[in-house]
Amino acid sequence: MERAISELSKLPGIGRKSAQRLVFYLLKRPEHEVRTLAEAIVAVKENILFCSVCFNITETDPCQVCTSEKRDREFICVVEEANDMLAIERTGEYKGLYHVLGGALSPLEGIGPEDLRIKELLRRLSNDTREVIIATNPNTEGEATALYLEKLIKPLEIKMTRIARGLPVGSNLEYADEMTLTRALEGRVVI
Amino acid sequence: MERAISELSKLPGIGRKSAQRLVFYLLKRPEHEVRTLAEAIVAVKENILFCSVCFNITETDPCQVCTSEKRDREFICVVEEANDMLAIERTGEYKGLYHVLGGALSPLEGIGPEDLRIKELLRRLSNDTREVIIATNPNTEGEATALYLEKLIKPLEIKMTRIARGLPVGSNLEYADEMTLTRALEGRVVI
Repeated sequence: MERAISELSKLPGIGRKSAQRLVFYLLKRPEHEVRTLAEAIVAVKENILFCSVCFNITETDPCQVCTSEKRDREFICVVEEANDMLAIERTGEYKGLYHVLGGALSPLEGIGPEDLRIKELLRRLSNDTREVIIATNPNTEGEATALYLEKLIKPLEIKMTRIARGLPVGSNLEYADEMTLTRALEGRVVI
Repeated sequence: MERAISELSKLPGIGRKSAQRLVFYLLKRPEHEVRTLAEAIVAVKENILFCSVCFNITETDPCQVCTSEKRDREFICVVEEANDMLAIERTGEYKGLYHVLGGALSPLEGIGPEDLRIKELLRRLSNDTREVIIATNPNTEGEATALYLEKLIKPLEIKMTRIARGLPVGSNLEYADEMTLTRALEGRVVI
């Protein structure tokens, strides 16, 4: 039981107390239910792989986005993680392809360019690429990564854009932090 | 005492319980302290007025921003409230003038164009105005107000811009709401 608690508490967002609660819950469930859960966990590792084109998580390779005929192949949106790609997909506004870097540059955590799918991104760029949209997170690591990509891609003379930093929809100027407000002013658009 | 509680609970963010707590607090303070507070409250109304140019709150008319020689008179930033102007001032990035509308259009609350300082804004625009920055809040009322101003100012052929809607600095794509993410994609900037 101690082993189950310590294994579960390694999961993100699950502390020792939550892990204990989960173990007590599992103890009360019928055996077949617990077995189904364990099998589903193993199946994650067995059936899910990374798309060899965009490095999205997928059950088929290449992934559904990369093989879809409805997607516009002239656009590549670069994100840090597969989660970010899902967030953009939920908007239903983007019809291009993606490239999942697998993280962001972070000297503090020892993550350098060779740890990310950067050369794979460069290899994907061609004369058919009309725009590369850098959608890394608007935080320190994401901005550093955007800057690094800019230096690599700029010489190829492919149009590069960065998602807008500004005030979230539905928010208030009064409560915006200064950096965001500065970005919102700098990035103002002509109407 | 009942009157004090009911007067205090009319203030924004102060409910009946907080008002009661305040009254009990005041009861325990020496009389001169309570009198100083009451005088300060009356002084707000007596000494603070609206700038006759930009409608910012001020103790001198015109206000310090409108009379400053360091401000760039070619730019007018339109905000809903004086608070919003203070928020932009805190960034230290904007050197132009302001215009405080005194609110935003809201049919639900019965606030129409005649309740805002819109005609006063139009009267301020001249050949010297190079850009009008619409910095109303990125919510329903603020956007409606921006649209209304656009219709009025567009025919004057003065450059109009809107502060950027997008992801706040330091945030994460994964947790961004869909509208904000859509705006961040639409408003992407060439790098």
